[in-house]
Amino acid sequence: MNTVDTDTYTIDIMDAIKSNNYNIYFEDSLGELKQFIANGRYSRFFVLTDENTAKYCLPLLRERLGNPDNFDIIEINAGEESKDIDFCIGVWKMLIDFGADRQSLLINLGGGVISDLGGFAASTFKRGIDFVHVPTTLLSQVDASVGGKTGIDIDSIKNIIGTFTQPKAVFIEDEFLKTLPARQILSGTAEMLKHGLICDADYWNELKASDLSNTTAGLIYKSVAIKNKVVLEDPHEKNIRKSLNFGHTIGHAVETYSLINDKDSLSHGEAIAIGMICEAYLSYKKTGLSAEELQEITQVLTNLYPGYNLKAANNDTLLEYMLKDKKNQNGKINCTLLSAIGQFTIDNICTDEELLEGLSYYTNL
Amino acid sequence: MNTVDTDTYTIDIMDAIKSNNYNIYFEDSLGELKQFIANGRYSRFFVLTDENTAKYCLPLLRERLGNPDNFDIIEINAGEESKDIDFCIGVWKMLIDFGADRQSLLINLGGGVISDLGGFAASTFKRGIDFVHVPTTLLSQVDASVGGKTGIDIDSIKNIIGTFTQPKAVFIEDEFLKTLPARQILSGTAEMLKHGLICDADYWNELKASDLSNTTAGLIYKSVAIKNKVVLEDPHEKNIRKSLNFGHTIGHAVETYSLINDKDSLSHGEAIAIGMICEAYLSYKKTGLSAEELQEITQVLTNLYPGYNLKAANNDTLLEYMLKDKKNQNGKINCTLLSAIGQFTIDNICTDEELLEGLSYYTNL
Repeated sequence: MNTVDTDTYTIDIMDAIKSNNYNIYFEDSLGELKQFIANGRYSRFFVLTDENTAKYCLPLLRERLGNPDNFDIIEINAGEESKDIDFCIGVWKMLIDFGADRQSLLINLGGGVISDLGGFAASTFKRGIDFVHVPTTLLSQVDASVGGKTGIDIDSIKNIIGTFTQPKAVFIEDEFLKTLPARQILSGTAEMLKHGLICDADYWNELKASDLSNTTAGLIYKSVAIKNKVVLEDPHEKNIRKSLNFGHTIGHAVETYSLINDKDSLSHGEAIAIGMICEAYLSYKKTGLSAEELQEITQVLTNLYPGYNLKAANNDTLLEYMLKDKKNQNGKINCTLLSAIGQFTIDNICTDEELLEGLSYYTNL
Repeated sequence: MNTVDTDTYTIDIMDAIKSNNYNIYFEDSLGELKQFIANGRYSRFFVLTDENTAKYCLPLLRERLGNPDNFDIIEINAGEESKDIDFCIGVWKMLIDFGADRQSLLINLGGGVISDLGGFAASTFKRGIDFVHVPTTLLSQVDASVGGKTGIDIDSIKNIIGTFTQPKAVFIEDEFLKTLPARQILSGTAEMLKHGLICDADYWNELKASDLSNTTAGLIYKSVAIKNKVVLEDPHEKNIRKSLNFGHTIGHAVETYSLINDKDSLSHGEAIAIGMICEAYLSYKKTGLSAEELQEITQVLTNLYPGYNLKAANNDTLLEYMLKDKKNQNGKINCTLLSAIGQFTIDNICTDEELLEGLSYYTNL
């Protein structure tokens, strides 16, 4: 159960990846979306965007779809704050005001906030309307748009409310990445590196050797294929899907802390990179990761991501955030760790002392 | 597709009714709940109650379960207002504050508001925790607790947000009905009469001949069996489940109107009775219900339920509420009607004029 066979991907021809009753399209993906719409029997179309994707991505989408005039646009502010339940209520109210019925389609055009929030809003509106994702950030292309998780935040607790609901299709268009700042590209890279660390040492080595500021469609395809394989085997996160949580127990706590306290808060990938370093250390202490591999992981991640002053954060606050993590049971903090690069191990209970030691490893670098 | 075979129920021994992967218990149902809890692997237990069920039902529940000390109670105000999203957020926040994890069980002890709200809150908390229903009103026993619909209101639009999620079990205990005022019993009776009208003329006749202020366990069992049979055939309301919407297109609009405008607003059953009278008239005009049967339905319902001054309501407002109904498509109002007592017909588009004529039939009685 600790490995996922990933050596059979064909990436010369990027065929649609088949997920849980839906396809993830890569080649001519906006053409595929146009076809999907033409084939569907939808009464109404709504596009959920944020201010950025409305400006940088919506024109391309419109153009490729032949400038349809029957699309209503729902625009929210950019940023994680928009995943709060209050914004979700805003989306529901707009769907009500626009007269959306059960045969409506919601097109989520944006990053992870848009797909998580839009997926949740759609999966619960009138007990569920169809939705598709058009992820426009690297992070959402390799992570949020695959796997059927939807989620919103309450009181900055990430994804505390959500559903497992599959989109009807996902359309990955690398054209959108050209509009992204380097920092956002790197945010997605962290999840790609995680895919290598948990499942595929060869892919990790390939990423290490690549210019990650200039991700290729082939690397994206491989990451999506890895994630898809994991979630297909375990859609409701009973066992191997927990592998994807590597770096996220500590990473989410750091992200929440930064979101609340920093003016220019950490990106998801920056926070997860910190979480992966800390949890790699825990893997070294608890689950057999070698000192050399810990060193290698630390070096790759610290080279890619800027340092963060974690000393300023209150340890009790960070532990409190970790305690609220969905993965816990009976009040015990539960981590996914590595036994080697490319091999994960799930359900490792970590004590407060161990978690603080993991944080110290990062702050003392 | 227009009839449901309902003549095979055994009501001498009220065996558990098997629904969509869960059981609905009748005999010694609180004993069954005790067993369910003993067999489960739950980490924590939460009981959702309102101020009434906390007072009148929780003591019996506690006693029959052997006065457990590991139950946390979440109490909300009684009444439909508590189904608003704001109260749902309150329930989520209490689950967070109590430290509920994914292995928690939510026990919904109350009427339809509790089961709809509790079911929704549980189905979305941490992407879904288990829940069971212990319905304490006749209405929730024969209607809300069966069928896997959860729902909350926004801006008084009923069940506009929700999921299709099955409880892990339902425990129907008629002991709870003894604490109910007559008006609440009659609220549930309306749904029972509807079950007869749409599917089973014999059951309708049996109800007509019964003292409905004193419902028997056998009648409840029969109603649950009818509803269960319908929802098992069509869990996501693609076709025959729509039969259950008879009386609800107009009834829900009247209920919403009354909720907003009346100090002592109509009960659900009172509103649905009005809806059934109006929609029986539409059935007479459009789908072949005979004049005699219209007369019979009108008489039974007006005898049971107090008159309501619908003239005071603004027709445009009522039509607007109907337009927001989940069952509509493409902005057209869609009704389930009768072709005879015991036979339904779905997807009947009704014009504004027809709907107003239906309302007039009631106001001119």
